[in-house]
Amino acid sequence: MNNTDLQKQIPRIVIVGGGFGGLAAAKALKHTPARITLIDRTNHHLFQPLLYQVATSVLTPGQIAAPIREVLRNQQNSTVILGEVTAVDKEQRIVRFDTIDRAGVVEPYDYLVLATGVRHSYFGHPEFEKFAPGLKNLADAVAIRNKILSAFEQAEAEEDPKKHRDILTFVLVGAGPTGVEMASAIGVLVRKTLRSEFRRVDPSSVRVVLVDMAPRVLGTFPQELSFAARRRLEDLGVQVLLGQGVDQIDEDGVVIAGERIASKTVIWTAGVAPSPAGKWLNVETDRAGRVKVRADLTVPCHPEIFVVGDTASLDQDAKPLPGVAQVAIQGGRYAGKLIHARVTGASPPGPFRYFDKGNMAVVGQGFVVLQSGKLCLSGFFAWLMWAVVHLCFLALFSMQVSVFLQWVWTYLTGRRGSRLIVNHEPFSRAEQHTSQQPAKELLGKNA
Amino acid sequence: MNNTDLQKQIPRIVIVGGGFGGLAAAKALKHTPARITLIDRTNHHLFQPLLYQVATSVLTPGQIAAPIREVLRNQQNSTVILGEVTAVDKEQRIVRFDTIDRAGVVEPYDYLVLATGVRHSYFGHPEFEKFAPGLKNLADAVAIRNKILSAFEQAEAEEDPKKHRDILTFVLVGAGPTGVEMASAIGVLVRKTLRSEFRRVDPSSVRVVLVDMAPRVLGTFPQELSFAARRRLEDLGVQVLLGQGVDQIDEDGVVIAGERIASKTVIWTAGVAPSPAGKWLNVETDRAGRVKVRADLTVPCHPEIFVVGDTASLDQDAKPLPGVAQVAIQGGRYAGKLIHARVTGASPPGPFRYFDKGNMAVVGQGFVVLQSGKLCLSGFFAWLMWAVVHLCFLALFSMQVSVFLQWVWTYLTGRRGSRLIVNHEPFSRAEQHTSQQPAKELLGKNA
Repeated sequence: MNNTDLQKQIPRIVIVGGGFGGLAAAKALKHTPARITLIDRTNHHLFQPLLYQVATSVLTPGQIAAPIREVLRNQQNSTVILGEVTAVDKEQRIVRFDTIDRAGVVEPYDYLVLATGVRHSYFGHPEFEKFAPGLKNLADAVAIRNKILSAFEQAEAEEDPKKHRDILTFVLVGAGPTGVEMASAIGVLVRKTLRSEFRRVDPSSVRVVLVDMAPRVLGTFPQELSFAARRRLEDLGVQVLLGQGVDQIDEDGVVIAGERIASKTVIWTAGVAPSPAGKWLNVETDRAGRVKVRADLTVPCHPEIFVVGDTASLDQDAKPLPGVAQVAIQGGRYAGKLIHARVTGASPPGPFRYFDKGNMAVVGQGFVVLQSGKLCLSGFFAWLMWAVVHLCFLALFSMQVSVFLQWVWTYLTGRRGSRLIVNHEPFSRAEQHTSQQPAKELLGKNA
Repeated sequence: MNNTDLQKQIPRIVIVGGGFGGLAAAKALKHTPARITLIDRTNHHLFQPLLYQVATSVLTPGQIAAPIREVLRNQQNSTVILGEVTAVDKEQRIVRFDTIDRAGVVEPYDYLVLATGVRHSYFGHPEFEKFAPGLKNLADAVAIRNKILSAFEQAEAEEDPKKHRDILTFVLVGAGPTGVEMASAIGVLVRKTLRSEFRRVDPSSVRVVLVDMAPRVLGTFPQELSFAARRRLEDLGVQVLLGQGVDQIDEDGVVIAGERIASKTVIWTAGVAPSPAGKWLNVETDRAGRVKVRADLTVPCHPEIFVVGDTASLDQDAKPLPGVAQVAIQGGRYAGKLIHARVTGASPPGPFRYFDKGNMAVVGQGFVVLQSGKLCLSGFFAWLMWAVVHLCFLALFSMQVSVFLQWVWTYLTGRRGSRLIVNHEPFSRAEQHTSQQPAKELLGKNA
């Protein structure tokens, strides 16, 4: 028997996605005698719960994103590939993907874990995307940060009072955790950080609007916490509009219940749609497009294909599992353990069961609403618990230290970690300007 | 006399550029009874001497760039505007600029300070730029970081040995401080940081080439330091090609002295060209395009217009002043002091005199070559001096702490601050792939 035959006996495991689910699966397979290939479209594992802090310039991208290969550097059975999966062939058991410079690369598998997450959904209005970017990855966060910071820069140079007001109106569509966290963080940014830095921008003239169809903010939280969050938002100067749909989003702002709110900065914090994993597999999905999985997170008739996290649809106690990080982490870990058991011949775990540790949302600095089991908490103490939990879950020790120091610094001084506008939109270019008042002519006078 | 008339009596000072020169001028005007407007194309003051560390992912952009308005937040006489200057009218004394959303905004001045720096120059070969990006601002640094990190990602997925080798060949054109620092930093990146993280990339197969027309590296340093730097570069595995020009740069690599070096990553660290300030003013420039200034850094016949830093051309002791940060800082400070004296009626300083504190360049971790007066040093002690000096010159205390901790961390562990590939080049898209092997067909088999 030669080397190649020996290699063939080692099972090949392909994991698609380096988010919470995929990384948990890879880590659970650390001691498995297998060749693991993790494929992701980016080179980093993103700690999404803190993404809104990058968008509001508290943290830098590097503080919440760890190179996947750095996280797995000591796991010798794992290879990390930067690539975008385009198809899965269930019969031949191969994954097809594109790398930066090659299309249609194939990777065979014996076990496949799909943990491909979600993107935003504009509920049938794809035309909104251009005017109301969503917040899912680092590029989104940096783009939104540019947009928010640029608005203040524009306002400082704008003398027309109406335009000045429109530029300083921020609208967030969707009052779930992301919308609430973004709205309150913008409120804090204005009041704490930017106050002393502008000469023509009056912080009290900044308007932040949070709008949702639902009757309350943080709809998945207990009612008392929704109320606490709303009160806190209003204390921070955020205008909360509930039970009202957005009819229109365009370059001049939004139309809510027939009334236009002029705004240059609209941010989409509402719906999500799953990745195309269901299409790749050509299997049954739920109405939202998530792959229906069995109790062991495998696809029916394909016990070698696992789907975990936001990409999967599974009911527990007659309720669908929510699209939160914990479901992905626990699902990924479960899939890893089950594959390990199959590879090594150990006894497999029972069906997957999600253990709900609770939910938290930040509403401005030093205030968190927290629900865990029957415990409901809001305020500063909940914020401390939130901070500890989030620090613990960061993927690298250096990130934990760095984010901790940054939070202490920002809390004490109000100063932020990263207020850079990089690659901002181009300036109103000179073509237009020179045609009206040629620069040449200006200079010509002095020639 | 009404308010407006009162305001008119306060002199208006416009500073163009928030780099070393512009910021030094603004700070020197802190106690001047004047209305100061600082206009910059970016919202941040960049600490350029550490830019190569962002490009090689030691530091994050936020660690070396401070929002200009944060630096000047307590200086109540100063307003910061994000805008791109397009023209200067010397007779009417106005500056014309574009903001993000408006073209042709005007700002009148009584005193004008131009500190607009340099861009790269491709010595009459603008077509090189597409294949060999230069390193001047944060966007450049992030683009080069993406390029370098992406090369390793491509190599990990590439099985063809020739392509694998070409992808892992890095060529730096220009062996001045930036070229030397970049080349050695890539060497360290490969040997220290990436070694344990790839399964198919062999660090010893990575080739770094540093090329220059000049007969030695660091041509502006004393000869003994050039030799020390070269030895150190070669210890780090960098191939140094001197006295040889680059004939050609294209997507397949470079041609040096008739011989092609196949490379996917060529970086331009050679020439610089001044900003168009000379054209705005329509005044005499030197051959390089820098504005010829008088001994008090003003433009002939226009004692109210100052040009400082890399934008200005001035001889001292029959030698032109070099394009380094210290010349810009001292020049900006001088211009500020002179304007202050004129505004307050104090006695003006004598002609500008640059005090040369010396030069330093980093050659890999823990090794610096340093010249100050007649002192020449190379090695670890010089590196400590370099580190202290550079920390002291960072614009904000939070940056000093953050960079210090990062350096200690990187020195001890070899791990880097920011290895993120954000907004990388698009993947080889599916159009091409699907036309050969339609994804549909792949899926169809299982339908």
